[in-house]
Amino acid sequence: MNKIRVGVLGATGYAGIELVRILLSHPNSEITYIVSNSYVGQKISQVYPHLKGVLDMECGDLDENKIKSLCDIVFTALPHGASKNVIPSLYNMGLKIIDLSGDFRYDDIKVYEKWYGESHPAPEILEKSVYGLPELHRDKIKQTDIVGNPGCYTTCSILGLAPLLANGLCETKNIIIDAKSGVTGAGRGLSTDVHFCECTENMKAYKIAAHRHTSEIEQELSNIAGEDIVLSFTPHLIPMKRGILATCYANLKTKMSTEELTYIYKDFYKNEYFIRVYDSGLPETNHVAGSNFVDIGIVVDERLNRAVIVSCIDNLVKGAAGQAVQNMNILYGLEEKTGLDNAGFYL
Amino acid sequence: MNKIRVGVLGATGYAGIELVRILLSHPNSEITYIVSNSYVGQKISQVYPHLKGVLDMECGDLDENKIKSLCDIVFTALPHGASKNVIPSLYNMGLKIIDLSGDFRYDDIKVYEKWYGESHPAPEILEKSVYGLPELHRDKIKQTDIVGNPGCYTTCSILGLAPLLANGLCETKNIIIDAKSGVTGAGRGLSTDVHFCECTENMKAYKIAAHRHTSEIEQELSNIAGEDIVLSFTPHLIPMKRGILATCYANLKTKMSTEELTYIYKDFYKNEYFIRVYDSGLPETNHVAGSNFVDIGIVVDERLNRAVIVSCIDNLVKGAAGQAVQNMNILYGLEEKTGLDNAGFYL
Amino acid sequence: MNKIRVGVLGATGYAGIELVRILLSHPNSEITYIVSNSYVGQKISQVYPHLKGVLDMECGDLDENKIKSLCDIVFTALPHGASKNVIPSLYNMGLKIIDLSGDFRYDDIKVYEKWYGESHPAPEILEKSVYGLPELHRDKIKQTDIVGNPGCYTTCSILGLAPLLANGLCETKNIIIDAKSGVTGAGRGLSTDVHFCECTENMKAYKIAAHRHTSEIEQELSNIAGEDIVLSFTPHLIPMKRGILATCYANLKTKMSTEELTYIYKDFYKNEYFIRVYDSGLPETNHVAGSNFVDIGIVVDERLNRAVIVSCIDNLVKGAAGQAVQNMNILYGLEEKTGLDNAGFYL
Amino acid sequence: MNKIRVGVLGATGYAGIELVRILLSHPNSEITYIVSNSYVGQKISQVYPHLKGVLDMECGDLDENKIKSLCDIVFTALPHGASKNVIPSLYNMGLKIIDLSGDFRYDDIKVYEKWYGESHPAPEILEKSVYGLPELHRDKIKQTDIVGNPGCYTTCSILGLAPLLANGLCETKNIIIDAKSGVTGAGRGLSTDVHFCECTENMKAYKIAAHRHTSEIEQELSNIAGEDIVLSFTPHLIPMKRGILATCYANLKTKMSTEELTYIYKDFYKNEYFIRVYDSGLPETNHVAGSNFVDIGIVVDERLNRAVIVSCIDNLVKGAAGQAVQNMNILYGLEEKTGLDNAGFYL
Repeated sequence: MNKIRVGVLGATGYAGIELVRILLSHPNSEITYIVSNSYVGQKISQVYPHLKGVLDMECGDLDENKIKSLCDIVFTALPHGASKNVIPSLYNMGLKIIDLSGDFRYDDIKVYEKWYGESHPAPEILEKSVYGLPELHRDKIKQTDIVGNPGCYTTCSILGLAPLLANGLCETKNIIIDAKSGVTGAGRGLSTDVHFCECTENMKAYKIAAHRHTSEIEQELSNIAGEDIVLSFTPHLIPMKRGILATCYANLKTKMSTEELTYIYKDFYKNEYFIRVYDSGLPETNHVAGSNFVDIGIVVDERLNRAVIVSCIDNLVKGAAGQAVQNMNILYGLEEKTGLDNAGFYL
Repeated sequence: MNKIRVGVLGATGYAGIELVRILLSHPNSEITYIVSNSYVGQKISQVYPHLKGVLDMECGDLDENKIKSLCDIVFTALPHGASKNVIPSLYNMGLKIIDLSGDFRYDDIKVYEKWYGESHPAPEILEKSVYGLPELHRDKIKQTDIVGNPGCYTTCSILGLAPLLANGLCETKNIIIDAKSGVTGAGRGLSTDVHFCECTENMKAYKIAAHRHTSEIEQELSNIAGEDIVLSFTPHLIPMKRGILATCYANLKTKMSTEELTYIYKDFYKNEYFIRVYDSGLPETNHVAGSNFVDIGIVVDERLNRAVIVSCIDNLVKGAAGQAVQNMNILYGLEEKTGLDNAGFYL
Repeated sequence: MNKIRVGVLGATGYAGIELVRILLSHPNSEITYIVSNSYVGQKISQVYPHLKGVLDMECGDLDENKIKSLCDIVFTALPHGASKNVIPSLYNMGLKIIDLSGDFRYDDIKVYEKWYGESHPAPEILEKSVYGLPELHRDKIKQTDIVGNPGCYTTCSILGLAPLLANGLCETKNIIIDAKSGVTGAGRGLSTDVHFCECTENMKAYKIAAHRHTSEIEQELSNIAGEDIVLSFTPHLIPMKRGILATCYANLKTKMSTEELTYIYKDFYKNEYFIRVYDSGLPETNHVAGSNFVDIGIVVDERLNRAVIVSCIDNLVKGAAGQAVQNMNILYGLEEKTGLDNAGFYL
Repeated sequence: MNKIRVGVLGATGYAGIELVRILLSHPNSEITYIVSNSYVGQKISQVYPHLKGVLDMECGDLDENKIKSLCDIVFTALPHGASKNVIPSLYNMGLKIIDLSGDFRYDDIKVYEKWYGESHPAPEILEKSVYGLPELHRDKIKQTDIVGNPGCYTTCSILGLAPLLANGLCETKNIIIDAKSGVTGAGRGLSTDVHFCECTENMKAYKIAAHRHTSEIEQELSNIAGEDIVLSFTPHLIPMKRGILATCYANLKTKMSTEELTYIYKDFYKNEYFIRVYDSGLPETNHVAGSNFVDIGIVVDERLNRAVIVSCIDNLVKGAAGQAVQNMNILYGLEEKTGLDNAGFYL
């Protein structure tokens, strides 16, 4: 089989450069075009010197015809807004698209417009897009040409709670997701918030009751539960680069032990390579740093009959670039773990 | 007035060395004896070289007569167990005691025995001890000679939720405290968990539904609410040295805006120097690093009518040594903020 | 005695905010005016929330008459350039000035102009200024009204090498200073270099053979040695907030043991409160974090007859704000360690 | 070709676990046996949970017959001492060995015995061993069955200075190597030095004029120069996980520009895939984090006619496990970059 020709639009942002890292060791694809608005004409290895001698490709601009001629599929990791105009054109030219923005993640355009505060740029394409969480929507992904790749907090939270809701085990009121993210989640843009001296040795909550990922989580969990779910989602910024840990709370409907609930989770995910449910103990973010795994630990607080689920991912991998490549694998009928079956860095 | 003669037992642990830092700039006290079981006979400045030329006192042993002759008050920051035997003796000799362990924090000995899994070493002294959270128990502290200095998570959590419960504003079911701590909270002892390479760029939850501080929080909040409260408390380890951030969730009984709830908090704490309720915005741990302040931010999630309270302290200061000195100030009729009225480090 | 009325110009930069921290606990001075060009009209506690309730002063602008009426002395920690115009005016109005920029540190205007690449803004004031390294120029500082407060790398390096050169013990060729700094040294300005994700888990050398502090070090060491010294100075950026460590190499003229050289250092600095020469062992930056101390460790490599001197300071304290306050103390005849006699944070 | 059957002895130390990471994506080898004295009988994925589902192999003990039957080659990353007894046996059984300790790195047994302070455990094998720095000893490595894999500081320093000495461009006196390492270099063992709270936000020099790697560097540079070289080597501990940066100083014999010296370096290393000489700018450790590259930046300080060379590696990769795999590739006639041709993590 010929290698899949891949374009990365927004290659010099953090999601983009992680796509480059993953794609470079993917056996069935090759990067044929990269776009970076800020660095057009510069080699990507000048912007990211770790790539010297490995990928010295020049950053191109958003030239749709060039992209069309060079690529079979594009990953769009462009800043919000930049993505809007180019995606419809490329889609209509027949390219497959995996978009890492929030634009193509919604079933209901009104939800998008409420949480993003603006009208949708391409409603007719939104209709055709599929929410790219393979563990839930594998079959639909196979049949689409446009994937809305899920948010990082979203992936971590949904997969942590799905077995509870799919099995009708918990109340749908009083679900609380307290999530913590490393700083790459904030992107490469400059602000005092991400200045090393303000960020290291510091932590904070932000956008309480207002983060856009809430709407994605609610959409998917409502679909699973078959009823409308409204929940608390609180993101926090933690002084580390990679990793999301979501601590999820849900009240169980019936008495159940930690072991019983663990069994249910293991059964629910028994065919999922990327989901590792812990028999005992709890996951930590360095268990998944650099890999596409989702590690889940389960505790039932028997005093309260409440499940406390801890779910960990690498926000740049399963939360962005790795999941995007997993989606590409599905689109092309490859084994899902192709190019993704490694254990990450740990150190 | 003569200076208060202070002993620090357990001076080379992290709470102990923070006591030393704070006491060295306290205008009305002087350190007259220090104990460190591991370093008897060595200068504390050999163990902690930052003290060279500032405090070159030798570490002594647990000699009760020596302590009695040299000290008016002792802070006991000894390892669990070591504290047990010495405190009754010193107390009976007439010394004032501020104990930083969990031993003297409980109203009900059965709660202690349940959560610590052992019988109490000195029940008759426990009866006389007062829980040293000045914002709640100032009057009782004035009249005791033995203070059970609160835990770090405890202080942060209780003060974050007290105004809600004191005013009967929230349900007592479904209270969730998701707390995050820097690594000094784990102490100076060695383990793989606190190895730099395992700890940096990593985070985790631990002791879910099982951390002893849960029992302290429930005791105090139950007292405030006038009914038994059982709640979720989840601690997390975050790769930074100082700081606790507790994100507290409680369902409001009646509709209320963020502004209204903020007003209630500001009113509740209007006479408290160390509690800073934010008019808007959210606290971060570096706002309180090195100081005795408790910073509290408030959001009402109007979709859910749920209060989300973010409370921050420095675990070594308001969560340990600073609060202990605040208690000493109360015991001696000093202004509570004596030696504690600084803004911390920020950087 | 009335308190010294102090103005801090550039209060919201990192040197400025550290001046605020130190001055707030200085017993003989009070902050009466603060300037921050970026935040005129805002409370400093809005910019730095750790100051809430401790210093809620509004940031003013560079109004010379207001400064004149409110202040006896000003610390100028303004960005390069901003400082230039205001200092001559304030100086001519009779204020005492301690300038934290490089403008008033030079004996020879040509050296300034060579390393800064521009003509000097106020040559007539430069002539009157004194280089504010108290351990070397205490007597001159007493008699001036304008102090050029030394650079951070400079202070650390000069004090590390002074005893060798003053005693004629080493060759003046082949002196090498390999210095490492925390990130606060780069200031609060934004750039990709100080983005948390680019900076943490990373280190680098920069401005090799080109850093301006080289010229300050050479000026002072040449004065001490009585001959022109040209040396290697290499700065490095290290992923931590505070601290400079300079590893200094110099070839000894005669055979000497580590003990002998240590004795010479201890003797040279025997009257200096802020300089701690180690009898054995080596200093680390957290031994001086938050304090005005300079910690010096000495090794003679007997195979090479080369001295290796390790010198540590807190770049924000002895390298900037602390030394500035030390200079203020000298200007006002206070004991030099007033407000500075603490041991720092350690944790 | 059948896959090379690889044993990793000491698999749960940091060098060992990095070997596992690299070998798992090596196309021509498979891990067939792992040894960990501390965890015999446990799955490696219990000790390092990031490996769950990827490598769940059980840790075995040092059973030579089992190793012999299961492996073609072993990497020995055992603690000093443990390595001694087993290597001669395995070697004599006909296994190929790549040893990551210091035991098989020396040409002259006396140098070993001087710097290690003990007699050599297997002098007859030492004679047959080859120093495993492929860029210098590729041809000899091809013909041996036992490789002494170089130290981390050593690799970084030697490769930084080799072109100068091979071309006779610098004086052999006054060579100074000021090296900085991340904390993984200290291994996984516990000590206060590597406690997160003592290590983060701190840096220090250690073992000045006494670090064993000095002897390796001198051996190799002396061989290159054709004369005995004695030099200064100073290691420093930096608060980050991975990375070594060596700043090397050498006096040039003749006048030369930065460009000229850069040209010489590029020419010297023109056939070396893993060495990237910078045309301009300086390397940083995150340019090589996770990869087997050596990045070198060059500055000539024309005032002093001194070369300042900055050399960076990942201490766990090119400084340990990556170089070991590079050596394995040579032993088996594979392309040297097999399994190593990636760009690392950057983030």
